[in-house]
Amino acid sequence: MALRYAKRFDGVTGSAIRDIFKLLKNPEIISFAGGNPANSALEADVISQLAQEVLAQNGVQLLQYGQTEGYAPLRESAAEFFRHNGVEVRPDELLPVTGSQQALDLICKALLDPGDAMLVESPTFLGALQTFKLYQADLHPVETDEDGVIPESLEEQIRAHHPKLVYLIPTFQNPTGRTLSLERRKAVAKLLERYEDVVIIEDDPYRDLRYAGQALPAIKAFDTTGRVLYCNSFSKIISPGLRVAAVACTEPTLLRKLVIGKQSTDVHSPNLNQAIVDAYLRKGILMDHIEKISKSYGQQMGKMQQMLATFPESVRYTKPDGGIFLWVELPESVNATTLLSAATEMGVAYIPGTHFYCEPDTHHNTMRLNFSNASLDNIEKGMNKLKALFEKNGL
Amino acid sequence: MALRYAKRFDGVTGSAIRDIFKLLKNPEIISFAGGNPANSALEADVISQLAQEVLAQNGVQLLQYGQTEGYAPLRESAAEFFRHNGVEVRPDELLPVTGSQQALDLICKALLDPGDAMLVESPTFLGALQTFKLYQADLHPVETDEDGVIPESLEEQIRAHHPKLVYLIPTFQNPTGRTLSLERRKAVAKLLERYEDVVIIEDDPYRDLRYAGQALPAIKAFDTTGRVLYCNSFSKIISPGLRVAAVACTEPTLLRKLVIGKQSTDVHSPNLNQAIVDAYLRKGILMDHIEKISKSYGQQMGKMQQMLATFPESVRYTKPDGGIFLWVELPESVNATTLLSAATEMGVAYIPGTHFYCEPDTHHNTMRLNFSNASLDNIEKGMNKLKALFEKNGL
Repeated sequence: MALRYAKRFDGVTGSAIRDIFKLLKNPEIISFAGGNPANSALEADVISQLAQEVLAQNGVQLLQYGQTEGYAPLRESAAEFFRHNGVEVRPDELLPVTGSQQALDLICKALLDPGDAMLVESPTFLGALQTFKLYQADLHPVETDEDGVIPESLEEQIRAHHPKLVYLIPTFQNPTGRTLSLERRKAVAKLLERYEDVVIIEDDPYRDLRYAGQALPAIKAFDTTGRVLYCNSFSKIISPGLRVAAVACTEPTLLRKLVIGKQSTDVHSPNLNQAIVDAYLRKGILMDHIEKISKSYGQQMGKMQQMLATFPESVRYTKPDGGIFLWVELPESVNATTLLSAATEMGVAYIPGTHFYCEPDTHHNTMRLNFSNASLDNIEKGMNKLKALFEKNGL
Repeated sequence: MALRYAKRFDGVTGSAIRDIFKLLKNPEIISFAGGNPANSALEADVISQLAQEVLAQNGVQLLQYGQTEGYAPLRESAAEFFRHNGVEVRPDELLPVTGSQQALDLICKALLDPGDAMLVESPTFLGALQTFKLYQADLHPVETDEDGVIPESLEEQIRAHHPKLVYLIPTFQNPTGRTLSLERRKAVAKLLERYEDVVIIEDDPYRDLRYAGQALPAIKAFDTTGRVLYCNSFSKIISPGLRVAAVACTEPTLLRKLVIGKQSTDVHSPNLNQAIVDAYLRKGILMDHIEKISKSYGQQMGKMQQMLATFPESVRYTKPDGGIFLWVELPESVNATTLLSAATEMGVAYIPGTHFYCEPDTHHNTMRLNFSNASLDNIEKGMNKLKALFEKNGL
């Protein structure tokens, strides 16, 4: 007799990009597929020093059970960090989590019943799509253009579907790299004043990786309702392996449900990791580190764009001011989904764009390219391989 | 307009013992309420040294994104650790998680739809009950006695409710401290051969804290079906704040769903923490540490039992060979639930037993006492306070 699995797994295989990520372990393959920081951006010596310091100062507390609400000093230092994005929250409005992915899971846990409507940018982050699908959300796309999500399309979809949640990545979006304009940020926040039971998740992990232009305030900075949940992560700017992020929630009842959900999920996030990130923030070394990694990521992005400029004119690609991704639209005649295995045989990997859409089996002429974890040389080599492959196959 | 919360939160407030745990922060209160290891059992210097070593050896890999399936060396060393409990699993059948609580959450995610039947020992761990309630499980109790869960009662309830899951803590159970006998372990495993779509969660975090008697093999050691999921944790024997545990699952399809669920929940558990525990295991220092802490926990348990022996004979309590809890049944005339606030005012805390039952508002004459985090002196003082309080209120 077969086991009776939960319905939430119907149609969720998790295998779509799993094989791609297995390839990343092969050092022969030039990978534009991941979303990893550069290895050179990870400071084992700094983290080791901080671990020693926090364990020497506060070891027993860190090794003992902690509070579900998070390590109190981190709630303070992270609130201070959020402030420079225009997100004015008190420490007790901020919940440290095990990566922003956990914030997504907990928000869904608090709000979604099977079949509830939810809106996502089209395209959007595939890891988030998988979380929403496991909560059996009824997903609807919102149109986007060069300036990010289109507020008129967002309002139209809110009216049509009465969603509980809207998921947005307004800055250097995953997968497109696009940034929501200032006017649209204000317009999106304003929408919540008219639709009084809609919650927006603002996922903002890339905002500090800016290589040109001026920083924009978060949507949350214009929120008068408490219904923008602002997620930021230290994964892209300190270390993803430490799994430390935080979500700001200024709606106390909702925050309470996030905490209860977290308690039943993992009791609390590891204290040591929260203390390391707290110490990193308090040392005042983060901005210098961001400046340093942004310099090389900017060069890597420039190199990848320079290579894309050598592709035929029918190939369109985004030109962001930061982040770690470019988005490529090939002519309809090129199928990036089916060409992936040929690409990896040639020694180069990307993620087919189809995986970033909530409508399955569409947009096979698109792909996401990551540049943060490849050297300038490998970007040149890898992009030349892709050009050759596509030119042989429909370009 | 009110926010539309998920139905899974109907009736889940999370507040039952929340206020109790807030009291634990008051150093004036003698707490028998928690489930914490002794502060003196937490080795900040050892953990700091291991953190330095693993970051020096393997820092970039640890700070980079890791695999959802866990840090490969820990899967090996934890499989070796599981082996001494008679749980013969390969490293690839073992999933490291952020505390056993996460294993419970992921198992429910893989298997439970709202309203699905599930069986639990009566009484059982309240944190687990909260997880099961958030998955909207239809919970049914299974009778227990001095030798743990009663196989006949278990089979009867399986026939009556056709549950997807059975949750058992066979060794030094939370909250009772009771241990399932060898014969019953075999009988429980055997049941799965007759009920072919039932899964047992065997939660076994206390087994190494044994102060008398002989260790028994896990139920999993007798499992011929792959449907016993064996959870063990390093929280009680190394550190709860590190949040490292592992679940063994020898049913590949189910394991795959646990991994997909984990991917969408937090991508992976923090690498540094997994590497610290792996290094701890490989150093071969765990058994000496367990011997050391068991010696003092055994004395603490002895002291608490000695104090309970001074209570009137109408007070019954368990006499376990290990673990960190005793379970007390007072005469029906004493209400441990309502007396808690008077107890905390007198400077002593426990958890009312009612919170450990899936039937709400029952068993108000019971309580759980933890001895691992109180000195011998405080055990004497705290138990005397409790005795005086109960004697004034119905004892």
